[in-house]
Amino acid sequence: MFAPKKKTRNPELRNQRKSFDLLTMAANVSSHYHVDLLVKEKRNLEEYENGDRHRQINNVISSPSSVLPPENGNGGIGLKLDINGGKGVTSNGGLSVSVPATPSLPPVISGWYADVSSLSPGEARFYEVEKVLFHGKSKYQELLVFQSKKHGKVAILDGSLQLTERDEFAYQEMLTHLPLCSIPHPKKVLLVGGGDGGILREISRHNSVEQIDICEIDEMIIDAYKKFFPDIAVGYKDPRVQVYIDNGIAFLKKIPEGTYDAIILDAFVEMGKHAVELADNDVLRSIAKALRPGGVVAIPSNNPWSIDSSMEAIILKCQNIFGGSVNYAWTTVPSYNNGTMGFLLCSTKGPKVDFKNPINPLNPNHFGVAEGPSKFYNSEIHAAAFCLPSFAKIATGSEVA
Amino acid sequence: MFAPKKKTRNPELRNQRKSFDLLTMAANVSSHYHVDLLVKEKRNLEEYENGDRHRQINNVISSPSSVLPPENGNGGIGLKLDINGGKGVTSNGGLSVSVPATPSLPPVISGWYADVSSLSPGEARFYEVEKVLFHGKSKYQELLVFQSKKHGKVAILDGSLQLTERDEFAYQEMLTHLPLCSIPHPKKVLLVGGGDGGILREISRHNSVEQIDICEIDEMIIDAYKKFFPDIAVGYKDPRVQVYIDNGIAFLKKIPEGTYDAIILDAFVEMGKHAVELADNDVLRSIAKALRPGGVVAIPSNNPWSIDSSMEAIILKCQNIFGGSVNYAWTTVPSYNNGTMGFLLCSTKGPKVDFKNPINPLNPNHFGVAEGPSKFYNSEIHAAAFCLPSFAKIATGSEVA
Repeated sequence: MFAPKKKTRNPELRNQRKSFDLLTMAANVSSHYHVDLLVKEKRNLEEYENGDRHRQINNVISSPSSVLPPENGNGGIGLKLDINGGKGVTSNGGLSVSVPATPSLPPVISGWYADVSSLSPGEARFYEVEKVLFHGKSKYQELLVFQSKKHGKVAILDGSLQLTERDEFAYQEMLTHLPLCSIPHPKKVLLVGGGDGGILREISRHNSVEQIDICEIDEMIIDAYKKFFPDIAVGYKDPRVQVYIDNGIAFLKKIPEGTYDAIILDAFVEMGKHAVELADNDVLRSIAKALRPGGVVAIPSNNPWSIDSSMEAIILKCQNIFGGSVNYAWTTVPSYNNGTMGFLLCSTKGPKVDFKNPINPLNPNHFGVAEGPSKFYNSEIHAAAFCLPSFAKIATGSEVA
Repeated sequence: MFAPKKKTRNPELRNQRKSFDLLTMAANVSSHYHVDLLVKEKRNLEEYENGDRHRQINNVISSPSSVLPPENGNGGIGLKLDINGGKGVTSNGGLSVSVPATPSLPPVISGWYADVSSLSPGEARFYEVEKVLFHGKSKYQELLVFQSKKHGKVAILDGSLQLTERDEFAYQEMLTHLPLCSIPHPKKVLLVGGGDGGILREISRHNSVEQIDICEIDEMIIDAYKKFFPDIAVGYKDPRVQVYIDNGIAFLKKIPEGTYDAIILDAFVEMGKHAVELADNDVLRSIAKALRPGGVVAIPSNNPWSIDSSMEAIILKCQNIFGGSVNYAWTTVPSYNNGTMGFLLCSTKGPKVDFKNPINPLNPNHFGVAEGPSKFYNSEIHAAAFCLPSFAKIATGSEVA
């Protein structure tokens, strides 16, 4: 896990550009330097590997290896932190560079986390890191948690930014309340994925709900969020919550027909390889079957700035599979790609669901296990979420008003 | 303009962290290297300095100095590009680092432009640069234009990202049509700032308009946009447009009372020091006076994620100054801070204006000088722009529904 990244510098590039020798040397110097630090400081990182927890001593200042999936073929864009010796020095006093094998990826900056997404090429978002808090690898995925300078704690799953404390509530609240506020008195709700607990926290605001089931594949996620994100994992404290540690796909297949009023699928491409599997057609059919007639499902989707005409096909597919209403919505989540997140809302054949006009508003006096009323969601922003820029209306097959 | 940036490395930091010597050395190496390049390649940069235009020969691959305003006290966050010898090599094959004097600022990455904003601390957005097209300095401000890899051409004004071709239309369309679609048959419209021409392009869609005045202080901006952003500067082709090269504040003071139906102020803090002056109280009073009763003004404002309780005070101030409706709206613009942009819409005392319910929809068949119908704006997204997340409703003094 802590091996230095493979140096896959492009020799052709180097030949064409002899004048870079000095820079290359500089890069090598800092790269080697880093490797030394990593070896020395490995003991300082709290680890969670292959299901075995073991707490490491001392403060946590170290450097996980690349967190990008290997198919990107790069030598390691990710996080590099320097040792600060526990003296209160900020982590950005030193510098390091590292030669990316793929020219379109930016080099590593010491003390900053580089968020690079295939959905936003030619762009990288850097977050200043104060301290790495956790770096764990289960048999399913790799989780990195760091304290950022200005965005609260940040969680990175398999190399993709999963959430920041600064804006997680926008995503969690919209993904939960868009479906639950669209149907009368939801009673049985299933969450697939969402091991962080934030969606549970939001479901908890709904008094009508009697049963909250969550199926999460990876116990490490639950443990890490309970420890490092108590305000998010607070959702687990709701006594209606029943946790199933299981593969979401297998779990969905076992559900008796018509069991749930609402299902929330907290998984999308950027959430790692297990999320991709979850968005499969068969899975959508399993969800449709598990819902009662006129039941609803919410699924994260591409953001409005990255959708294209294939979105219309996806909507048509969902209409076929679910048989009721299908709508695309979006909202602002600054730390996600293009600062936005898309949602697909589908209902099964049965009592008609009008997602654009919520009939079951949140009661601001019922917090459930949350600390206070919702910070983002309200009935106005619910309705507004279905209003799209003209280019996105065209991509989703709607007429431009 | 091409002087190497001052090395203001913090000696205390260096003493505390002796182990960084190697990295510091590496940084020095590449820094000097860059200086050499700059001197050698200065001839390759097209320049526009102090009002004197002079075109430089050859391809433009070079490196402007820091584009951050001096009060940030840093040694140079900005753009650094390497020479690629015109061989079609991407600009990211080499690396350079540079030690920031302010530890909270990220170092320079060669081949990438770092967008750093005081409104989004602890964060930096990097855009991959293909080619610098223009770097000019007038007596008012500094403009940098580069071809990005994935965001079209990008304009940087006084160190702040002004627009990218990929999403400029979201901002330009909303800032124009939110006010103009809220009043019946606007005839006389004034644009203050907005020298790029994009707002002119959008005003041009309104057939009722008879007179479009623009007051722009800096001719360099107009010239550069006409040359490098023809799809934006196309607005100048509208025969109704009358250009006044003047100081916006002085110009506003000279306007006879009640002249305009609508004024659009295309200026906000991030647009440089002249924009800051424009947002002054006296200026707002001049605008109110220049508007007819029931006239409207649109002003860019803080984005919803960065507003705080001071927003309520700003709204109250505008209500006092303008005497009619005052509303806060927002929309998604990925390349702006937090991926969003805020707008203040104000109307003067007189016929009531209901900004939230547009009465003058765009005619999609009237493009004016634009190439086609609006890409972003429609009546639905107009209404949705006034629906705020709960935390922003609280900050603007609205009740949470």
